Amino acid sequence: MKVLLLAAGRSQRMQPIPDKNFLFFLGKPLIVHQIQSLIKAGFDDFAVIGGNHNLDKLKTLPQDYDLKDINYTVIEQQNLDEGMAGAVIACEEIIDGDPICIVSSNDIVDEKAYELVINEALDEEVDSVIVGKKVDKYFPGGYLEIDENGFIKSIVEKPGEGKEPSDLVNIVVHCHKNPKKLIEELKKVSSTRDDRYEATLDSLIKGGLKIKAAQFDGYWQPVKFPWHIFNVMKYFFGKMEKSISKNAQIAESAIIKGDVIIEDGAKIFENATISGPAYIGKDVIIANSSLVRDSMVNEGCVVGFSTEVARSYLGKNVWTHTNYIGDSIISDNCSFGSGTVTGNLRLDEKDIPVNVRGEKMSTGTNKFGLITGENIRCGINTSFMPGVKIGSNCMIGAGLVIPYDIDDNKFVKGHIELDVRDNKAELDSSARDEMRGKI
Amino acid sequence: MKVLLLAAGRSQRMQPIPDKNFLFFLGKPLIVHQIQSLIKAGFDDFAVIGGNHNLDKLKTLPQDYDLKDINYTVIEQQNLDEGMAGAVIACEEIIDGDPICIVSSNDIVDEKAYELVINEALDEEVDSVIVGKKVDKYFPGGYLEIDENGFIKSIVEKPGEGKEPSDLVNIVVHCHKNPKKLIEELKKVSSTRDDRYEATLDSLIKGGLKIKAAQFDGYWQPVKFPWHIFNVMKYFFGKMEKSISKNAQIAESAIIKGDVIIEDGAKIFENATISGPAYIGKDVIIANSSLVRDSMVNEGCVVGFSTEVARSYLGKNVWTHTNYIGDSIISDNCSFGSGTVTGNLRLDEKDIPVNVRGEKMSTGTNKFGLITGENIRCGINTSFMPGVKIGSNCMIGAGLVIPYDIDDNKFVKGHIELDVRDNKAELDSSARDEMRGKI
Amino acid sequence: MKVLLLAAGRSQRMQPIPDKNFLFFLGKPLIVHQIQSLIKAGFDDFAVIGGNHNLDKLKTLPQDYDLKDINYTVIEQQNLDEGMAGAVIACEEIIDGDPICIVSSNDIVDEKAYELVINEALDEEVDSVIVGKKVDKYFPGGYLEIDENGFIKSIVEKPGEGKEPSDLVNIVVHCHKNPKKLIEELKKVSSTRDDRYEATLDSLIKGGLKIKAAQFDGYWQPVKFPWHIFNVMKYFFGKMEKSISKNAQIAESAIIKGDVIIEDGAKIFENATISGPAYIGKDVIIANSSLVRDSMVNEGCVVGFSTEVARSYLGKNVWTHTNYIGDSIISDNCSFGSGTVTGNLRLDEKDIPVNVRGEKMSTGTNKFGLITGENIRCGINTSFMPGVKIGSNCMIGAGLVIPYDIDDNKFVKGHIELDVRDNKAELDSSARDEMRGKI
Repeated sequence: MKVLLLAAGRSQRMQPIPDKNFLFFLGKPLIVHQIQSLIKAGFDDFAVIGGNHNLDKLKTLPQDYDLKDINYTVIEQQNLDEGMAGAVIACEEIIDGDPICIVSSNDIVDEKAYELVINEALDEEVDSVIVGKKVDKYFPGGYLEIDENGFIKSIVEKPGEGKEPSDLVNIVVHCHKNPKKLIEELKKVSSTRDDRYEATLDSLIKGGLKIKAAQFDGYWQPVKFPWHIFNVMKYFFGKMEKSISKNAQIAESAIIKGDVIIEDGAKIFENATISGPAYIGKDVIIANSSLVRDSMVNEGCVVGFSTEVARSYLGKNVWTHTNYIGDSIISDNCSFGSGTVTGNLRLDEKDIPVNVRGEKMSTGTNKFGLITGENIRCGINTSFMPGVKIGSNCMIGAGLVIPYDIDDNKFVKGHIELDVRDNKAELDSSARDEMRGKI
Repeated sequence: MKVLLLAAGRSQRMQPIPDKNFLFFLGKPLIVHQIQSLIKAGFDDFAVIGGNHNLDKLKTLPQDYDLKDINYTVIEQQNLDEGMAGAVIACEEIIDGDPICIVSSNDIVDEKAYELVINEALDEEVDSVIVGKKVDKYFPGGYLEIDENGFIKSIVEKPGEGKEPSDLVNIVVHCHKNPKKLIEELKKVSSTRDDRYEATLDSLIKGGLKIKAAQFDGYWQPVKFPWHIFNVMKYFFGKMEKSISKNAQIAESAIIKGDVIIEDGAKIFENATISGPAYIGKDVIIANSSLVRDSMVNEGCVVGFSTEVARSYLGKNVWTHTNYIGDSIISDNCSFGSGTVTGNLRLDEKDIPVNVRGEKMSTGTNKFGLITGENIRCGINTSFMPGVKIGSNCMIGAGLVIPYDIDDNKFVKGHIELDVRDNKAELDSSARDEMRGKI
Repeated sequence: MKVLLLAAGRSQRMQPIPDKNFLFFLGKPLIVHQIQSLIKAGFDDFAVIGGNHNLDKLKTLPQDYDLKDINYTVIEQQNLDEGMAGAVIACEEIIDGDPICIVSSNDIVDEKAYELVINEALDEEVDSVIVGKKVDKYFPGGYLEIDENGFIKSIVEKPGEGKEPSDLVNIVVHCHKNPKKLIEELKKVSSTRDDRYEATLDSLIKGGLKIKAAQFDGYWQPVKFPWHIFNVMKYFFGKMEKSISKNAQIAESAIIKGDVIIEDGAKIFENATISGPAYIGKDVIIANSSLVRDSMVNEGCVVGFSTEVARSYLGKNVWTHTNYIGDSIISDNCSFGSGTVTGNLRLDEKDIPVNVRGEKMSTGTNKFGLITGENIRCGINTSFMPGVKIGSNCMIGAGLVIPYDIDDNKFVKGHIELDVRDNKAELDSSARDEMRGKI
């Protein structure tokens, strides 16, 4: 069974975080984790559908991450507006009579979900299988309406709380035994419809296609909004096994506690504390008196003197220096001047909203810091208000308070006005002598 | 002898610090320390005079603090404007023929002062006893004018330096063997007079009442102005015995030196230093790389990462995070965002004044920080100027400089104006490579 | 041979750093290091030419720094505008028939340069000797044009790159066997000429004076611009021998690594790190959790809690407190409030310019911090932009961003405008309970 791994999306709801497939967890991109899960479940034939923005990086994944003994093709989806349906159609040429399994990189599940779909597909009565995640509270997604035999009657998008046709949410782990038929039908539906894929399934069901709902009770995490990254981080922390490279340099006075991975070339300086769960990537530097806890610190980061990184995701090559980075997501190649702080708690201690495509959404927590794109440079002693987003390639001046989102490619300064007068004050050196005595 | 413990005052000169009776030292309210001193001196019958604002808390003191084998009544003083005289009159019903000892919660003395008054009262010739604290420099209080036998001729209020009738300052530890007579006389004097109690004593003296001045040479500290709290703190530090609870969790790398008390449930994290004298209350958390010295850190406080608390009083449940809290008095339930600093030294290094009821008073020291009421929330990277007072229930924004006092219940913001332009700068990644080499 | 040590210059290009002769390295003024080098090379007769501003300090050098068995005179140069020529003429009275060696305090060389000049002067054919430093890239100074026998034909000032007459730069280590003749000639040239000394040499050469170029290949560092101080610091670090005084108090948990000198009376507190090369002067205090690396911390400094001092020169009695002082030069008696930071990297990571006498000069590095004069007082949470200079006796307020140079004797404030409203927000104490659970 060939996997069609949908990875072409532009992660617009994640902005300014770039392509979520290349968020790094435990030293590997998210999409590699997904492929390895699929391999573990038994798949060995992959067509990864990418877009112009990530095609090159997708192509080199097998060699970059040593993915052996698999067939691996990358297919370009030209028109990303055509979504999932467009992605499947883009694969038309490589699809033969064999079954396919469509997997979206939006849904992180454990490999049991993939095994489940393989098993259910063995049943000869079944034409297609869709994984339905059992939920115990309302999630704003598509719900599976099923008959008494577990076959899907329809998929109901965002029915509203209390109106769910079942407790099964549609997860994009979809097996189709007759993919040619699927593509044929997809082509009949207007390419401008947002729900083209779902509408196609509906019409196939009406035409007699038997889609089994594979009821899944395991781990599932959509990766749709920035704050989902924290959940995925926790998931990987839960799976990680403690390991400290012999090629890491760890000062005798540094403290390493709890579950941690410390990779080759990392340097942990005096009196630094790594409090697990934590991942310290290749060549990362953790300077004196710093504290890293519950955080993912990717390859090449420099956590400077007396910095606290708490419950945060740092992309590659992020430089900090006497900062507090709390509950924040910092993309690759950002840097923060000494004294700069990510506020992560409102004064009124209420839940912190984040703007997503123009809409204020609650993150569901009262502890939430900063979200940045790549290549940010931020000056010293600046204060970011909780839930603010800074676009890629921005420069942010020193001593500022940043209360709202900043678009990509901006330079942000304050208006500095100083009152410079003649100094009339006189100092009495005895004051210092007295103070010295009190130290 | 029944003690009339006057505790109804509203501590107006202490504002925004609430009721000074409930300032906590070594885990107990100040008034409990006073009661225990009185018990130690031999008293076992207490009438505590409170006001509407603290009546409930006063009532439960014996059970809350395990004060055993004493008679204990709480009396409400309705009209707090009537001061000491009003407080004594409020006790009329519970006063019988037995002697009383009036003690004010404004005067902290060691138990020897109480023993002294008991002893002097044994003399049958004596009708009343007033403790006179021997002072060696001028204090702006009431002075005892005495005759050759040590009996008081009059009490002279604030005579001015050089005009003191003796070196004895009137401390409110007053024994009256005939309290009924006292009350009778008090009632004859107009209730609107500020000096009603003193005027009554004068008239009683003229009528033949023999008031002995009990000359006291021990510890005395009035608790009138906020900075007196530091003196009281020192007093209790001097009396404290080192004790570290077995139920405290102290990281191996944490450093505890000097005289400290660390209570049950406290957690001291890695590389934190507690440098005595210091009191670390129940369930207090001292996070990594923090330093607490010469400070009272009451129950439930969280001293966050890399914070210094020096020569300060923190009420209960104060949260700090990468702050410098120096020479400051922070009331219960306040919190400070990362990077916020209490300035405690003027640029000109002169003595620091504090506003008390509209008047600028010198604190007598050039090291003085912040005074706050309860329930303050302060943002990140804010700077408080030395000697500033912040009222209860205030919220103070991020990145501000607070140069003056803020009343209760205020929300303080700055005017944020950012200049957001297109970023024209280009980064050369080799710069970072070079810098990495220098780390 | 008498040394004429020229030390009268006012270091104008070094401003606001005062007299460079009294910059302290390894506990001694720069000029004492120079004298000791000269003694080591064999000199024992010194005339130091000073100006009104430093005469007193120059006079007491032998007793202050235990310079034994030498002749030592201090000569005042009245008119400092007359430069090197004026300095030599000022010595007329003390010059007899013996040779002199003119040495400028602008040029730091190792003692081999002095030995070289002594040796070359032994040659009877030689009338004068000038040390020529072999350079391998262009330096904007005077170049020696020499003949085939190594005698100087002329000195070419700033010839421009590619037009150098040789690879030998004129270093002011000049021996003259007939100083009386030199002075006689100097007097003939107009005192208003900038190049009076060089013009005199030219005319002497034309008159047959044989000046040998002593080709020198060792260490040479001009001390002309503030950033040269970092080079000199490195030079002395290279020569220093590890030594930790028995009279220093070093906490058990403090970490001392690499080459360091720690002098008498220094106190290193808990969890502080000194990472060599570093010099910690007499009575210096390094407080808890601080980090000092690649820095010169002179006598009496207080490096307060959680401060990083990196690649910096701190004069005497500099007080820091929770600061980052990076790539900075701080003159004596300055102090920085908690949270104040010296920015040392531009957002665009380009080389950092510094104003020198009205002209923007590149420091040649992208890591450069603050330059200050003496007696600065700076408030809390202030941000200095990279390459800024603050004049002596300035006071700088709290919470400011200082983007440009400040002249001597200024008081700098910002315009504080707060928006103080009634606080309508309500706090739900359960939020804190939840947060406490997550610590």
